[in-house]
Amino acid sequence: MGYAKPSARIFIAGDLGPGLAVTPERAQGHYLTHVMRLAEGDAVALFNGRDGEWRAVIAGGGRHAVTLACETQTRPQRAEPDVWLAFAPLKKTPTDFLIEKTTELGVSRLIPVFTRHTATERVKVERLRAHAIEAAEQCERLSVPEVAEPVTLERLLAEWPAGRTLLVLDETGGGAPIAAALAENATTPPCHGILIGPEGGFSFNELDALRKLAFVTPVGVGPRILRAETAALAALSCWQALVGDWR
Amino acid sequence: MGYAKPSARIFIAGDLGPGLAVTPERAQGHYLTHVMRLAEGDAVALFNGRDGEWRAVIAGGGRHAVTLACETQTRPQRAEPDVWLAFAPLKKTPTDFLIEKTTELGVSRLIPVFTRHTATERVKVERLRAHAIEAAEQCERLSVPEVAEPVTLERLLAEWPAGRTLLVLDETGGGAPIAAALAENATTPPCHGILIGPEGGFSFNELDALRKLAFVTPVGVGPRILRAETAALAALSCWQALVGDWR
Repeated sequence: MGYAKPSARIFIAGDLGPGLAVTPERAQGHYLTHVMRLAEGDAVALFNGRDGEWRAVIAGGGRHAVTLACETQTRPQRAEPDVWLAFAPLKKTPTDFLIEKTTELGVSRLIPVFTRHTATERVKVERLRAHAIEAAEQCERLSVPEVAEPVTLERLLAEWPAGRTLLVLDETGGGAPIAAALAENATTPPCHGILIGPEGGFSFNELDALRKLAFVTPVGVGPRILRAETAALAALSCWQALVGDWR
Repeated sequence: MGYAKPSARIFIAGDLGPGLAVTPERAQGHYLTHVMRLAEGDAVALFNGRDGEWRAVIAGGGRHAVTLACETQTRPQRAEPDVWLAFAPLKKTPTDFLIEKTTELGVSRLIPVFTRHTATERVKVERLRAHAIEAAEQCERLSVPEVAEPVTLERLLAEWPAGRTLLVLDETGGGAPIAAALAENATTPPCHGILIGPEGGFSFNELDALRKLAFVTPVGVGPRILRAETAALAALSCWQALVGDWR
């Protein structure tokens, strides 16, 4: 066929399929026509997390509404790793960074968690969701990680699903080396969560409660002090390499 | 003893030892007295990459020069992993990020490499060095990674030391999964390098040349597109977990 690769790639909430007409969000329309300067007939890549990736063309529209016409599926939908990341919210820049990088690294669900020493009290979930969409658009993922409503650590643990292992980054040095812990906790299919504490660490009581839970495995990531967002990336990278889809 | 942990931690080029007087750089003196607002008698943690970590106190000095007196060694020097990262320079923010995060993750040597598709033509090595020092101060490392002078890819490969494996991130999908490649290339002591290409990828000729070298192992990090700096962190995390000091 020899089509050039579309220069823009956007996430669509609705269905994608042969001949379907798609109306992107207003901000996306603005992006296509004003930022990317695309015009009628130009190609755009679309994905919705269910129907694979589609090549569409700009079918029309004016200043405020663009219509896209789906043409052909360019990639089928595929199963993606099932790995959650629960994290104590950080300041704006490191949180944005965490969302962007963990999306690239294939996280399936992001859960902001309030712990005793969490410095931030408010989380703008819609902002995080928009950021996850943007990151997914740019890294060619076929899905967008879900960003859950923030919960307290207590509630996260009380409602943790049966059968899902929770790897807790334990910076006190008490955890098993992460590679060994992953090897021991490999399930088929792998179904894990990773919990990263705040910059101030977990409180003594929190760590004590975590260690008593059967589904929790405390893990360590070496002798240096990692920032929370670095620890999140490191743990997720090891997970993908050892039990996820980098194998 | 019950000393409070010093609130400031700085890298010193000179020797550290019992009773030694140390004069920090002028910018460091400014940081201690004006930013951290420390005064005579206040404690500062010092390290130089050779003599472990020392508790020192501000012994005197005025507006423009501070003197520190070494008191006791708080941590002995320890051997650190021997892992190099060669990377095609990125824009300012992702390069800063790469330096900061790979320092936390324990890289021993950072080498800026110019490839065919490297977008940046100039590298401010002194800036990168200052950034590596700052990151090492903050992550409690006992050393600062060396930042080498930039080289071309050709020269990097021509001068690559015998006995050191080079893991090349191959985004064309031709490489072995990183965990498998690390298991196969584990040496004692581990002595590796990791090479990350530019955003535009390696050229066809570069990849061809790399694949022909006996010390090169092309590796892959899964089906999603990672930004260059994310790939660097992911590869280094896997290295530490599987053959470095996270075991």
